Amino acid sequence: MTAPHPLDPDLRERLLAAPVAGLSAQLRARGIQGVSIEGVRPLRPGARLVGVARTLRYLPLREDLFVSHGGGYNAQKRLFDEVGEGEVIVIEARGDTRSGTLGDILAARAVARGAAGIVTDGGVRDLEAVAGMAIPVFALGGHPAVLGRVHVPWEYDVTIACGGATVQPGDIIAGDADGVIIIPRSLVEEVVTAALAQEAEDAWVAARVAEGHPLHGLFPMNADWRSRYEAERGTPEKG
Amino acid sequence: MTAPHPLDPDLRERLLAAPVAGLSAQLRARGIQGVSIEGVRPLRPGARLVGVARTLRYLPLREDLFVSHGGGYNAQKRLFDEVGEGEVIVIEARGDTRSGTLGDILAARAVARGAAGIVTDGGVRDLEAVAGMAIPVFALGGHPAVLGRVHVPWEYDVTIACGGATVQPGDIIAGDADGVIIIPRSLVEEVVTAALAQEAEDAWVAARVAEGHPLHGLFPMNADWRSRYEAERGTPEKG
Amino acid sequence: MTAPHPLDPDLRERLLAAPVAGLSAQLRARGIQGVSIEGVRPLRPGARLVGVARTLRYLPLREDLFVSHGGGYNAQKRLFDEVGEGEVIVIEARGDTRSGTLGDILAARAVARGAAGIVTDGGVRDLEAVAGMAIPVFALGGHPAVLGRVHVPWEYDVTIACGGATVQPGDIIAGDADGVIIIPRSLVEEVVTAALAQEAEDAWVAARVAEGHPLHGLFPMNADWRSRYEAERGTPEKG
Amino acid sequence: MTAPHPLDPDLRERLLAAPVAGLSAQLRARGIQGVSIEGVRPLRPGARLVGVARTLRYLPLREDLFVSHGGGYNAQKRLFDEVGEGEVIVIEARGDTRSGTLGDILAARAVARGAAGIVTDGGVRDLEAVAGMAIPVFALGGHPAVLGRVHVPWEYDVTIACGGATVQPGDIIAGDADGVIIIPRSLVEEVVTAALAQEAEDAWVAARVAEGHPLHGLFPMNADWRSRYEAERGTPEKG
Amino acid sequence: MTAPHPLDPDLRERLLAAPVAGLSAQLRARGIQGVSIEGVRPLRPGARLVGVARTLRYLPLREDLFVSHGGGYNAQKRLFDEVGEGEVIVIEARGDTRSGTLGDILAARAVARGAAGIVTDGGVRDLEAVAGMAIPVFALGGHPAVLGRVHVPWEYDVTIACGGATVQPGDIIAGDADGVIIIPRSLVEEVVTAALAQEAEDAWVAARVAEGHPLHGLFPMNADWRSRYEAERGTPEKG
Amino acid sequence: MTAPHPLDPDLRERLLAAPVAGLSAQLRARGIQGVSIEGVRPLRPGARLVGVARTLRYLPLREDLFVSHGGGYNAQKRLFDEVGEGEVIVIEARGDTRSGTLGDILAARAVARGAAGIVTDGGVRDLEAVAGMAIPVFALGGHPAVLGRVHVPWEYDVTIACGGATVQPGDIIAGDADGVIIIPRSLVEEVVTAALAQEAEDAWVAARVAEGHPLHGLFPMNADWRSRYEAERGTPEKG
Repeated sequence: MTAPHPLDPDLRERLLAAPVAGLSAQLRARGIQGVSIEGVRPLRPGARLVGVARTLRYLPLREDLFVSHGGGYNAQKRLFDEVGEGEVIVIEARGDTRSGTLGDILAARAVARGAAGIVTDGGVRDLEAVAGMAIPVFALGGHPAVLGRVHVPWEYDVTIACGGATVQPGDIIAGDADGVIIIPRSLVEEVVTAALAQEAEDAWVAARVAEGHPLHGLFPMNADWRSRYEAERGTPEKG
Repeated sequence: MTAPHPLDPDLRERLLAAPVAGLSAQLRARGIQGVSIEGVRPLRPGARLVGVARTLRYLPLREDLFVSHGGGYNAQKRLFDEVGEGEVIVIEARGDTRSGTLGDILAARAVARGAAGIVTDGGVRDLEAVAGMAIPVFALGGHPAVLGRVHVPWEYDVTIACGGATVQPGDIIAGDADGVIIIPRSLVEEVVTAALAQEAEDAWVAARVAEGHPLHGLFPMNADWRSRYEAERGTPEKG
Repeated sequence: MTAPHPLDPDLRERLLAAPVAGLSAQLRARGIQGVSIEGVRPLRPGARLVGVARTLRYLPLREDLFVSHGGGYNAQKRLFDEVGEGEVIVIEARGDTRSGTLGDILAARAVARGAAGIVTDGGVRDLEAVAGMAIPVFALGGHPAVLGRVHVPWEYDVTIACGGATVQPGDIIAGDADGVIIIPRSLVEEVVTAALAQEAEDAWVAARVAEGHPLHGLFPMNADWRSRYEAERGTPEKG
Repeated sequence: MTAPHPLDPDLRERLLAAPVAGLSAQLRARGIQGVSIEGVRPLRPGARLVGVARTLRYLPLREDLFVSHGGGYNAQKRLFDEVGEGEVIVIEARGDTRSGTLGDILAARAVARGAAGIVTDGGVRDLEAVAGMAIPVFALGGHPAVLGRVHVPWEYDVTIACGGATVQPGDIIAGDADGVIIIPRSLVEEVVTAALAQEAEDAWVAARVAEGHPLHGLFPMNADWRSRYEAERGTPEKG
Repeated sequence: MTAPHPLDPDLRERLLAAPVAGLSAQLRARGIQGVSIEGVRPLRPGARLVGVARTLRYLPLREDLFVSHGGGYNAQKRLFDEVGEGEVIVIEARGDTRSGTLGDILAARAVARGAAGIVTDGGVRDLEAVAGMAIPVFALGGHPAVLGRVHVPWEYDVTIACGGATVQPGDIIAGDADGVIIIPRSLVEEVVTAALAQEAEDAWVAARVAEGHPLHGLFPMNADWRSRYEAERGTPEKG
Repeated sequence: MTAPHPLDPDLRERLLAAPVAGLSAQLRARGIQGVSIEGVRPLRPGARLVGVARTLRYLPLREDLFVSHGGGYNAQKRLFDEVGEGEVIVIEARGDTRSGTLGDILAARAVARGAAGIVTDGGVRDLEAVAGMAIPVFALGGHPAVLGRVHVPWEYDVTIACGGATVQPGDIIAGDADGVIIIPRSLVEEVVTAALAQEAEDAWVAARVAEGHPLHGLFPMNADWRSRYEAERGTPEKG
């Protein structure tokens, strides 16, 4: 596969400014709900992730296939060598927490390549070292074992399942403390614009709530609140 | 339902001083064990929770019922608008972690109402924002999706199941790093008094253990240790 | 049982210097994979554990057996009174998280005895207090209930299962952020020596990766890289 | 609650003739997917279930509430005494398989009342006796313990969750070897008509497949196959 | 260990006549609830099991311990060679379904020894052959792999956990379609007598229910029903 | 992909004569253990399966991808139209039991094509109809919903994971009451020969056990038993 088209820097900035919860809500509003990578958490509190998916598929350990695919310059190492700036490596590990799926040397290579993050629905070796690196990593937890305990590294740049969601190479990946989601490329511009607008509106609503106003009529806003909001925002009311 | 009777401020202070583990032990001593809300953890380390239960029941997503009950001024919003000072909102989410069950605007409303806390056996949206608010929240984790992904907000102020335990409106809820428990109202005075007494005794035992004394005879205390304890505490020996 | 043979202080130092992931890899290289205690996490971030296993076996609560084995100076208290310097108490709790398996007084006794750590595949009472003590504790989480809610403390110094792995009294236990493993005594010297050597090599590889070298040929090292490594390390090349 | 409106006998016959899989597909075609009671299986192979839901809600065992609600003429017994002809008792047991949720005497009462079936996402006591009775029962399996081991019988004729789906009193319940589904009352006429039509069409397609025709163009039918089908069925082609 | 005391033949007959559900209820009435071996099912429908427990403990696979304990004349084979008439082999397999825990040759040996049954919370190899033998076997299901895939056969005639319940050598084991329970030896006479009496009473109640009488007042019986029952049974009313 | 090389009829007969447990043991003896498709059971008791794998991969439902891949002549239908005589369709459904993964029309097409079986780690629609067809089907159970409830049919004739094991197109699949295993093509001749030889030996051992001989020395056979066995079998003893 040729590398996926990179994210426009301005789009990337706007995605970083939008909470994952807000992006998720906009996808739902467009009929897309099957895009949460369930269960993964950032190794470092406060981590924020945005980038373009590069995918890596592991299969269940089968001893004969590990001989042919597990060792040497395998699919895992190839992808970490090839990952590009702004890309996020997403690993299918079938939710199996009984081994690591990457360690500190692999993570260091991703940093050196300028990757934007790593997401795995398996474990991470060298958890503390990896958590301290200049790259956001989302995983199910730590595990000391090498991946060959339960996985065969198989192929990369194919469509995968991760955390119960389907990820295609080139999809946009966004993560924060709430979790990680997938944004289909064709929707990303529309979704981020709507999410940032909603975020501004929600911040205004939150300020009203903090002042003591009830949710009733305010969240969602009725006509009165909306006209007050739009007046304050300098937005012309819709005709 | 009329709002439950508030907690007496002095009783509340004493409950805050008693570890949840100690309260749990006193309930067990009175034959009550089915009162642990399993799996929930505080969003902010060190959080301490005491208050009176207000309950909120979600049901599994069914598209036709979401139309009638999910949107607008639903049961969730009504309860957050009505919750009173010192009350704890307890949410039945059936342990389903595939969506949020509240977000930052709802949590802000609970803060504005003076609520004493929130407990949910589901996820929380806007995890970082909510964790930073002036209210203890105990949950299974974060999730970016709105509740409509898996829930229909149904009703409030009814008896619910949360984390595998039954919660009635008006029950006393207590939580700390060990977890969250339910204290039936009729037992709270007796249980907190006994827990604080036991806590004092345990602290004295812990000091002896720290000095190097063995557990044997000391934990639980035999007659010798008890008389020494009571002498030091100025408590007249029984009998 | 007589107390297990203590760890040689120098060996202990070397074990503390070796990451658990590295020790795990060396065991795998010798055909030993069934040695991960799955799911346990340190109560205090950054905790590092090395010691000799003392084992404690709990059985599922059966009311008639709790009468005979649960109370008074039971197997749990006996072991905490007997545990020696440098020993690690490992508890079989069958992965049941619905109660604590030890609390602050027990943990304080382990500290007073100079124990090197505690590992339990159950919960911990008084989580915050225990996390603050001068002993590393690895567990599945906190729980306020006493162990009698789901366990009968049964016996100690017998072979047990913990976190899906078999632990014998006298085994070496090592833990860090990646998790906890068991090292059979007969392999410990060989494994730690190999792990430290590999760790040095991996650190050198990591430095090359940080400089921007690809994994290809470097990890694992081909002949060129190895000769460069050995030249820098002052190690004579093999024949 | 007054008893729900009974099923029209002709409608009931048509529902019995329609496979649950076909009814499920028609609900999905109308945007309703959250209607599968997951995991329940018929105690007797070949059982077929159709009726109107009567609901029964159990809550997790809490010793103090069992005293007030568990014994005597409790919610469970009241509903079994009141259940009417053609009605299906649906029990919320939270998927807990560690006790029975009904036994042979209760089941006999349901038979005597002319009930159309029982569905529980818990266990059944006296499994063999109950399986032999003249009533279809769908459950998670057998268990010898009485419900008080893990449940408090709480209330009936309220909206419940069963097998991860929401059930309202008066909903139509249909079950066969594929599982059990809920049909909202307002959709039942339309859904059963469409399911029977689709079933006839599918039978015709299956006959063509058995003759050796490929799925391509036939399933779903293209214009050629459809016109052949309609010709054979004597159905005028759509203009 | 010396073989446990055998069951008196008359007691055995009475146990075979008592449903497991009834025995379970009597144990609960005496405060004993932690005696259900969860999840096990008979390989052959209609199987009925009564006997004296002989226990067998497997531990999680650890390659070095499998060398010392797994092969040759191991604990598993020793117990099957030693099991006596009327005894039930109960195996601790930790609920792991990823291997068999016995196969047809072992089962044939148990038959030849006159054993009364086998219970395992793991899988069975040669499922069809074993199901056809003259011995009731309760298990979690079939699996083709030998036990060494996940277990080390460790020891026998020790206290074990099976299906989440504690079993001691010499305990009475009873199983039918509802599941398998453990009856502490000291309670067996009292429990079976009470269960048979209750069974007779329940049969009479069931007959009244079949005649159309409501549960109200009948189940449990009020004074009127009880006097009618005792009159029919020829039992003098209690003064 | 071109269709995989068919099984030689004689090899197929010998595979059908060998129990899956015996084949599994021979694979283990050659270092291959990761070949059990966990959890699947035959829809019809007594079913026996042998054939060459054709693979089908489903991915988690993502609404945008279902539009492009879910409907019409999708990967599922293509494979069922193309499957050849003696081939076994193996479906990756990620163990998700919340929908069917095939129904009666698809199964009928597989029968018409002469397929040797179907294995899915998901559910089956039209369970009763499919169970009655002239093809062995192994699945996790029944479910009325169409696959689009949780899956996108994605591609076929690629390497997949099914029931926790990796399956390649062209692998040999064998199933019976014990479960389903994968035999790498390169090992099948050797494994079946050894399994049949072992089966003969085990049958002889079983006959001796039935006569009352102990396992000790017989299972596995010591030199005496082996020489007796070889004498009876007319096999020359190994020099």
